[in-house]
Amino acid sequence: MKQCQSLITPVILCGGSGTRLWPLSRATFPKQFLQLEGEKSLFQQTLQRVHDNPLYDAPLVLTNQEHRFYVGEQARQIDVPLDTILLEPCSRNTAPAIGAAIAYNNSRKPDNLIHVLPSDHLIQDDEPYRAAILEAAQTARAGYLTTFGITPTYPATGYGYIKAGPKLEKAGHKVERFIEKPDEATAKTMVDEGGYFWNSGMFLLSPESFMQELGKFEPEMSSAILKAVKLAESDLDFVRLDEATFSMAPDISVDYAVFEKTERAALIPAPISWSDIGSWQSLWQSKGGDDAGNVVYGAATLNAADNNIVVSDGQHIALNGVSNLAVIATDDALLVSSLEQSEDIKKIVASLKESEATSPLTQEHKTVYRPWGGYTSILKGERFQVKKLFVKSGAQLSLQKHHHRAEHWVVVSGTAEVTIDDEVKILSENQSVYIPLGSVHRLKNPGKIQLEVVEVQSGSYLGEDDIVRFQDDFGR
Amino acid sequence: MKQCQSLITPVILCGGSGTRLWPLSRATFPKQFLQLEGEKSLFQQTLQRVHDNPLYDAPLVLTNQEHRFYVGEQARQIDVPLDTILLEPCSRNTAPAIGAAIAYNNSRKPDNLIHVLPSDHLIQDDEPYRAAILEAAQTARAGYLTTFGITPTYPATGYGYIKAGPKLEKAGHKVERFIEKPDEATAKTMVDEGGYFWNSGMFLLSPESFMQELGKFEPEMSSAILKAVKLAESDLDFVRLDEATFSMAPDISVDYAVFEKTERAALIPAPISWSDIGSWQSLWQSKGGDDAGNVVYGAATLNAADNNIVVSDGQHIALNGVSNLAVIATDDALLVSSLEQSEDIKKIVASLKESEATSPLTQEHKTVYRPWGGYTSILKGERFQVKKLFVKSGAQLSLQKHHHRAEHWVVVSGTAEVTIDDEVKILSENQSVYIPLGSVHRLKNPGKIQLEVVEVQSGSYLGEDDIVRFQDDFGR
Repeated sequence: MKQCQSLITPVILCGGSGTRLWPLSRATFPKQFLQLEGEKSLFQQTLQRVHDNPLYDAPLVLTNQEHRFYVGEQARQIDVPLDTILLEPCSRNTAPAIGAAIAYNNSRKPDNLIHVLPSDHLIQDDEPYRAAILEAAQTARAGYLTTFGITPTYPATGYGYIKAGPKLEKAGHKVERFIEKPDEATAKTMVDEGGYFWNSGMFLLSPESFMQELGKFEPEMSSAILKAVKLAESDLDFVRLDEATFSMAPDISVDYAVFEKTERAALIPAPISWSDIGSWQSLWQSKGGDDAGNVVYGAATLNAADNNIVVSDGQHIALNGVSNLAVIATDDALLVSSLEQSEDIKKIVASLKESEATSPLTQEHKTVYRPWGGYTSILKGERFQVKKLFVKSGAQLSLQKHHHRAEHWVVVSGTAEVTIDDEVKILSENQSVYIPLGSVHRLKNPGKIQLEVVEVQSGSYLGEDDIVRFQDDFGR
Repeated sequence: MKQCQSLITPVILCGGSGTRLWPLSRATFPKQFLQLEGEKSLFQQTLQRVHDNPLYDAPLVLTNQEHRFYVGEQARQIDVPLDTILLEPCSRNTAPAIGAAIAYNNSRKPDNLIHVLPSDHLIQDDEPYRAAILEAAQTARAGYLTTFGITPTYPATGYGYIKAGPKLEKAGHKVERFIEKPDEATAKTMVDEGGYFWNSGMFLLSPESFMQELGKFEPEMSSAILKAVKLAESDLDFVRLDEATFSMAPDISVDYAVFEKTERAALIPAPISWSDIGSWQSLWQSKGGDDAGNVVYGAATLNAADNNIVVSDGQHIALNGVSNLAVIATDDALLVSSLEQSEDIKKIVASLKESEATSPLTQEHKTVYRPWGGYTSILKGERFQVKKLFVKSGAQLSLQKHHHRAEHWVVVSGTAEVTIDDEVKILSENQSVYIPLGSVHRLKNPGKIQLEVVEVQSGSYLGEDDIVRFQDDFGR
């Protein structure tokens, strides 16, 4: 049942660099999209929290070009309708992103409050959580920019802290000050002293106050994002902020741009079960594990092994006589890390990025999802490569041609409609077709079940960018 | 320069179960054949030791049906001509195998001494080693069954021990007794006391004495193997012992059948650099490693990691904050084991063997070598699978047909001659052909460079055993 008061627009931040849960997360596939063995992704769990709560209006998701199809696809999987997928044309940190989302929302639903939610945090949707939201909504309605503070359970050095000031009339506290990620000694002092909270990165905002404060402290940014929203263009399911104006906004965080300066910051101490899943260790902690403390996704055999997290997307993993490890296997990369030091995998990712040979390992997976389905790279030679394509029922790839490669398609499951220049033919399981270099072609699944095609490419250059598109259902 | 005295026939034992260096070693590919990044395999190193030494005649290799093509191929790779590849028709432990090899040798070169050599030990071919061989040859010529004893460097429980008796006139000692693999306390006592040596499993034998003693202690075995040699059949490059008679030989070790009973056992204390590479730990020890004690084969990135052995045959391996591990990645299985407990991977292998789903992981690799080349399984679906075939210059597969599958072949490198029923055609790079279910077909590489073909199989049953052979160059 909807409440009589104004609703809350969830603004879900869905960017992310994909280094913390490497090798499962990649630049093109950050951790909020990970679906471990049929579990819902953190992004989907975030959507569900706001969908199952009558306080909320339909969500607005902020993401980028690279991730836009995952956003739509994962929302569809769990039947949560989105208000809008708002595309950042370039990366500009949280202040311009949140500002643009609020400006966009104000142009359509100016009475709604704004709940800014990271898409990659794990939160238990329980009574304390819901009570904190209600309190935060009260302070936001009173014109405050409200943050949620998590009671620290240990002297973490990976989070920013907030010091609570005097109590507010209805709920929460004024913020006394924000503290950036501290060193261990400072963190310990704060935890021992009390009155300090972890900055959860969640905010419940009065949109009017936010835009006023942004205009006051960052007039250039405010003007840039207002223009970027005004000039935004609809593109299929997406609204794309104007690049020329959005890119003028300074690249700074919302904490720095607004919260550390404003007098209107409020804090709701939130006794909620929260994790930012910032490392394999924190994922392991959030899962519990079996009697021996092992968390296992995928096929594994364990002998004398305890307190490990094991993830495999195919290979059989055997652990023998080991403890406190993250063992994460993907098609092309394998991580073996001590859980305690799992935050340091950012060093590994940084080092992989430095070399041309290993940089792709940080960028994308062998299986890549596309709005029509996707493909898995299964073999690469010098002048050939083999992929398995999977095409959803009713979907089709773009009408395209390649300058440097010919392709063989063998249908191994389902039915394909293949266009080659002026000819259209239907292929069923075990039939094949040859696409000569330079011919204009298209693959479509006219059937009711998923189409699977083994593609053998042959040519002197086999990059994904050798593609000339003539028509595309997905505006690419 | 050949010496005037009789030569020594090396009898190289090339069986092995392939569990100790799992997942690199498999039942069909035991550890003696492993070639780590272009290094010579232990089998090849064994061949080279006897090839580079004028004491020796050409080697006789004892192996089985499963491993026979690896033996031939690896000998060819390093240009060591073999006298004979002797095939055991069934597995009967070391006593019947060595007995048969000696009986076979006696039928052709009765004056040669016999040097029994495991194919999967690491030995440094240095002065002390060669001196030990010369001493052992002396005692063997005097009618002794000579063993090589390694001076223990720690109280190992994984080896048998030999207690030295009184000195012999020319070289070495009489054996006082053999001790089976001891417990830790017994091992410690023996090492502290001195006069005990590890049983290396290498023997230098007077063939006449050996056959006499075998006849005395195991008359049934002796009679069975003499018949099996008499009825042996030549099969291409191989001599196959007669199965009906060989299988009558009791399944016992040469230590138990002869050495523990004979009065003619002699021991040469051999100050040689020796390892049986019985675990990942011992392989790691034998390699040394870099400044941080890491031994790395394949692509890897290490951060704060020391004293590990890392092997990858494709995946990029990242280690973060870990020590004393074996991390071994293959296409289908991945081991992460503490080095100290690496002998326990036999428990993992035993557990994998128990289930039908995981048993293949102990049997063979995704890349399987055949006398004509081989193939790699790259993708399996329910009703299809994709393989990459590689065919050596001039080689051809058998003329064959399948009852349950059709095949698509796409040539991705080199030139193929394809026979389908009565038709023969030549395909070059980027051409393809369809092999209908039930048609009689053959693939040949008529060219000078390796032929590579991507094969997409489609059908209701895709096992390797759905093959009817009409003609085969390799007697299969």
